[in-house]
Amino acid sequence: MAANWKEKMLRSCEMTENYLKDCVAKLSAPEELKEAMLYSLLAGGTRLRPYLCLAFCRLCGGNEQDALPFAAAVEMIHTYSLIHDDLPCMDNDDLRRGKPANHIRFGEANALLAGDALLNLAFESVLCSNLPADLVKEGLAVLGQKAGACGMIGGQTLDLAAEKITPDEEMLLQINRGKTSALIQAACVMGCVAARADETKKQAANAFGEALGITFQLTDDLLDVRGDETKLGKPIGSDEKQNKTTFVALLGISATEQRAKEENERGKEALSCFGPEKEELFLLADWLLERES
Amino acid sequence: MAANWKEKMLRSCEMTENYLKDCVAKLSAPEELKEAMLYSLLAGGTRLRPYLCLAFCRLCGGNEQDALPFAAAVEMIHTYSLIHDDLPCMDNDDLRRGKPANHIRFGEANALLAGDALLNLAFESVLCSNLPADLVKEGLAVLGQKAGACGMIGGQTLDLAAEKITPDEEMLLQINRGKTSALIQAACVMGCVAARADETKKQAANAFGEALGITFQLTDDLLDVRGDETKLGKPIGSDEKQNKTTFVALLGISATEQRAKEENERGKEALSCFGPEKEELFLLADWLLERES
Repeated sequence: MAANWKEKMLRSCEMTENYLKDCVAKLSAPEELKEAMLYSLLAGGTRLRPYLCLAFCRLCGGNEQDALPFAAAVEMIHTYSLIHDDLPCMDNDDLRRGKPANHIRFGEANALLAGDALLNLAFESVLCSNLPADLVKEGLAVLGQKAGACGMIGGQTLDLAAEKITPDEEMLLQINRGKTSALIQAACVMGCVAARADETKKQAANAFGEALGITFQLTDDLLDVRGDETKLGKPIGSDEKQNKTTFVALLGISATEQRAKEENERGKEALSCFGPEKEELFLLADWLLERES
Repeated sequence: MAANWKEKMLRSCEMTENYLKDCVAKLSAPEELKEAMLYSLLAGGTRLRPYLCLAFCRLCGGNEQDALPFAAAVEMIHTYSLIHDDLPCMDNDDLRRGKPANHIRFGEANALLAGDALLNLAFESVLCSNLPADLVKEGLAVLGQKAGACGMIGGQTLDLAAEKITPDEEMLLQINRGKTSALIQAACVMGCVAARADETKKQAANAFGEALGITFQLTDDLLDVRGDETKLGKPIGSDEKQNKTTFVALLGISATEQRAKEENERGKEALSCFGPEKEELFLLADWLLERES
């Protein structure tokens, strides 16, 4: 089963990357813009979100092909957010996944536009789906809600505001629900939408996505204090250096570990309405909890 | 008729602004983000695009209320593009319509996010329409195409590239079709879509919008060399100072005037399939041609 799960992850990664390449290739847009978009789209990463979108579609009895434009859309949003996040006025990061950040490679103005273009293209990708118009509308509504001011961008705004104060645990949770969980939730719920799943399953997918996002952030904070720099590919202790308030700083290591385990369990429990094939998602959740990078 | 036209313009401006305010007010998003979004959304401007969207809907026999979410969406795209354009890495403008630019008022990072949030909200606004799902899908497709890599953002990318070379007339036209015409075309065509207009009318609206955008740019270039600074509200000669290639620089004043008149005629001729109520759009086109600011 474990091997089977990783195979599925690799396959959805390949499907998504091929789809992303096609999506950009067929645009009658300036070549330099397409190059900047593809540079970041194809820079690697776990493709966690597309995998979740396709997996939930499968678990709800749908056809993965129907969910592919949705999965690609979520990955486009994720990619644009990284490009804009790396800009000097935001996190000012020169490197992303070991490669020069988009603005280092193409200049700030082009990076800004490549990000805007990917955000725009995400909504167009959903429209490319062959699903009936009402499902396309529903998928778009989920994406818009989770990616926008009430979701990811809202979380980023709170995160900026938190630089000036010391956030408490509830605010930290709120920031991470926006910054990390929201887009993961979009992926999970949109997979259900593509499979015409009922409201119960969509709500379960939403709760699972929220917990997975929080677990991801908790383990991220833990890795930053006790990770292996060679496995992590980046120096540890960067949160403290940047004066960033983390769960570890607020709760300590052992309580943060405990919270991560609890969130992981909460996520699994949310999936009670799904059949035994949900085991695949349990393995993914455990992998995220125990990851070393 | 002339007074009637201006009244209609004022009324669509009021309708759009009320709708925009409501749209942002009802978001459960951080207050500071909503404030930054509204700051630029309500900073004035001609509201040319929403007017065109509502006018084409009326001319096609539709109900303006159906087109309002489309009109607001185009204005949100226009506003986000101005916020991102003013950023230091783009045009680095501190003032917009006589007020501090968004990034001067809220900081660069917040301005970047407010722009992203407006781009995202534009697609959500279209989804709020009460029209049948297939028309909503069609409206979204037009918006995505005209605002994205093949439209406005493509034009902005070409414009950046043109800073390094001296563009010829054809390239200048291509830049302005993207930067200026594309979103005006979106407004015109989406108004037709909201009224369930036929393909002929949508194509006519598209051609009219293209011509109107080019006319707008030609007169803009003319105003920059011979405008009245007090009426214009900004110093003349700024294109030359910024080393920007304009139609006037390429063709000279009198040929640019001639081209503006020709484009204006071309736009009017495109509307031959519409009834006598199209006179309203002719008056608008003439007003844009003869404007002093």
